[in-house]
Amino acid sequence: MTTAHGAVETPAFMPVGTQGAVKGVTHRDLESLGAEILLTNTYHLYLRPGDDLIARRGGLHRFIGWTRPILTDSGGYQVFSLAARRTIDEQGAHFRSHLDGSAHSLTPETATDIQARLGSDIAMVLDECLAHPADAAAARHSMQRTLRWACRARDRFLALRDGLVPDVIVSNPGQAQFGIVQGSVFPELREESARHTVDVGFEAYAIGGLSVGEPIDVMYDIVSRTAPCLPADRPRYLMGTGTPADLVEAVARGIDLFDCVLPTRVARNGLLFTRRGRLQIKAARYARDPRPPDDGCRCYTCRTFSRAYLRHLFAAQELLAYRLNSLHNLTFYADLMADLRAAIERGESRAFVENALASFREGVDAPSY
Amino acid sequence: MTTAHGAVETPAFMPVGTQGAVKGVTHRDLESLGAEILLTNTYHLYLRPGDDLIARRGGLHRFIGWTRPILTDSGGYQVFSLAARRTIDEQGAHFRSHLDGSAHSLTPETATDIQARLGSDIAMVLDECLAHPADAAAARHSMQRTLRWACRARDRFLALRDGLVPDVIVSNPGQAQFGIVQGSVFPELREESARHTVDVGFEAYAIGGLSVGEPIDVMYDIVSRTAPCLPADRPRYLMGTGTPADLVEAVARGIDLFDCVLPTRVARNGLLFTRRGRLQIKAARYARDPRPPDDGCRCYTCRTFSRAYLRHLFAAQELLAYRLNSLHNLTFYADLMADLRAAIERGESRAFVENALASFREGVDAPSY
Repeated sequence: MTTAHGAVETPAFMPVGTQGAVKGVTHRDLESLGAEILLTNTYHLYLRPGDDLIARRGGLHRFIGWTRPILTDSGGYQVFSLAARRTIDEQGAHFRSHLDGSAHSLTPETATDIQARLGSDIAMVLDECLAHPADAAAARHSMQRTLRWACRARDRFLALRDGLVPDVIVSNPGQAQFGIVQGSVFPELREESARHTVDVGFEAYAIGGLSVGEPIDVMYDIVSRTAPCLPADRPRYLMGTGTPADLVEAVARGIDLFDCVLPTRVARNGLLFTRRGRLQIKAARYARDPRPPDDGCRCYTCRTFSRAYLRHLFAAQELLAYRLNSLHNLTFYADLMADLRAAIERGESRAFVENALASFREGVDAPSY
Repeated sequence: MTTAHGAVETPAFMPVGTQGAVKGVTHRDLESLGAEILLTNTYHLYLRPGDDLIARRGGLHRFIGWTRPILTDSGGYQVFSLAARRTIDEQGAHFRSHLDGSAHSLTPETATDIQARLGSDIAMVLDECLAHPADAAAARHSMQRTLRWACRARDRFLALRDGLVPDVIVSNPGQAQFGIVQGSVFPELREESARHTVDVGFEAYAIGGLSVGEPIDVMYDIVSRTAPCLPADRPRYLMGTGTPADLVEAVARGIDLFDCVLPTRVARNGLLFTRRGRLQIKAARYARDPRPPDDGCRCYTCRTFSRAYLRHLFAAQELLAYRLNSLHNLTFYADLMADLRAAIERGESRAFVENALASFREGVDAPSY
């Protein structure tokens, strides 16, 4: 995938820098572990420090000091999940800030304007995030609204690109815009949404509205049914997913791009992902364990520290615990994607997927191979 | 100063890794900013994860993954300031853990044994930490008890070194032991304490019981009167101090070694030390400021990020704010010590001291030179 700030090898996982920073690590850490693209949240940066301030500082890349590609979400998901007293109508979403209660509106047009000011390399359209479960009628109604919003967002994006909106600073003239497929858990709605979203015409396409509480096999089935409806020559982005197993399963179904707060959020709670499954570092059995979390891992944490020390840091609530755990989990995700790319190039992706999923199930305390 | 884990250029500042980690930074950060020696707190490591566990893991260096010199305090200061329901008698200090209320005693002998198990390169004797202010009689009584404890601690240290205490694991046979001068704010008590502590005979000597609330000029005066009473061919360690100005003033009075939580603690509160004085990163005037905190600083924070971004991170309470601020303050302290060493070697320490103190007073928002 090529962007205005360089190429990204796919399949790729995007660490989430919600407010312009990934919790627990530095940009330098991200670069050294091989992260090629960062996701930041439009809702948070719009409220603080503000998209106008960032535009006047030269855009998001310069403001946060990150030189590689950045994808921004539309802000819609946070509005639906975080904002107070939100209402949605055909125009858009109307809400109050979770920070100070101030009133705001997010429409297909303003979500596009805000991301233009931020100057991300990839902007997302505003979509309606339907709660799960939803019946077929509600899902169809919401999917169709998301399609109407997609048309408005694309029109605005092209107007900004053509310089027809003089009062909006366009920080990154090379910005791309991705459409989003909705339709809840209904395959025929997903296929209809995909077909019409592709008709609108975006640089690439995402699958939204999954990982919202539906059974895991339902998610895999929807991905299997939806991915083939999206252009094979454009990256396919599965939004907000997931576990290491989810990523492997989704790549096997044609997904190229992922984002999720999971690896950093659970790291701060002491959960480490390894090639042999999950490791809860606070467990008493690690108090005297001289082994690294994952003896197959190249990260600074695994190269330098024992489970015994990491358990001590976590028990003592040292900041270093959150940092070392996050650095490991993000490295694990980056290496899993790199291994998948290599397997795909070798034509051995099926065998890799089966072996990886089996290895995750083995358990971290299984005897070392 | 040479230790079992290598040499330390003096004057030197020791970052404080209270529980075996310096808050907000990694060991790798500390090495790259030039920290040659780390201080860790015996009280905390004794309670969690325990000195016996650390000894059985091969000692503190191996347990925490730090290969350079380590100094451990005696645990006395934390017992006096942190522990619950503490009593002190001639035998030692008796207290309850701040973690679980369990009962413990810290004596000159057990403080020496615990540090032998930890295997630090420099162990400190247990001293009585008198509250300020204290009258001359109380100060004399406490200083004399500290002298009696020093004799007991040295006897124990030598017995451990000679292998006469078989039930204590000695993790670092090359460990040194420093004595501590007390005497509150009374010059004659300080001189008497120094003379007798030197008579006991330690590898080197520290000045304790300062920076406890006395006026700053009183502290400088006591340092001026005490340092000359300590051997010129051994490092002189001023415990628990201080601000950049304090370090410069104390080096000018013959001090070689410092430790303080100040640079990391205030960093987590948004205070940055610079060559031009103090910078409160949360101030509104930095919201759009593209300059680094200190344009004369080589640290990752100053090389990479603007005051505007650092202010945003702090306002958003991002972990990265604590990390970048701590990295800067520790680099500032390390470079201040390096600049002092260079000035001393050039025979220009007096001019350096005057210029540094004047520069700190200029104010960070003064026009750049």
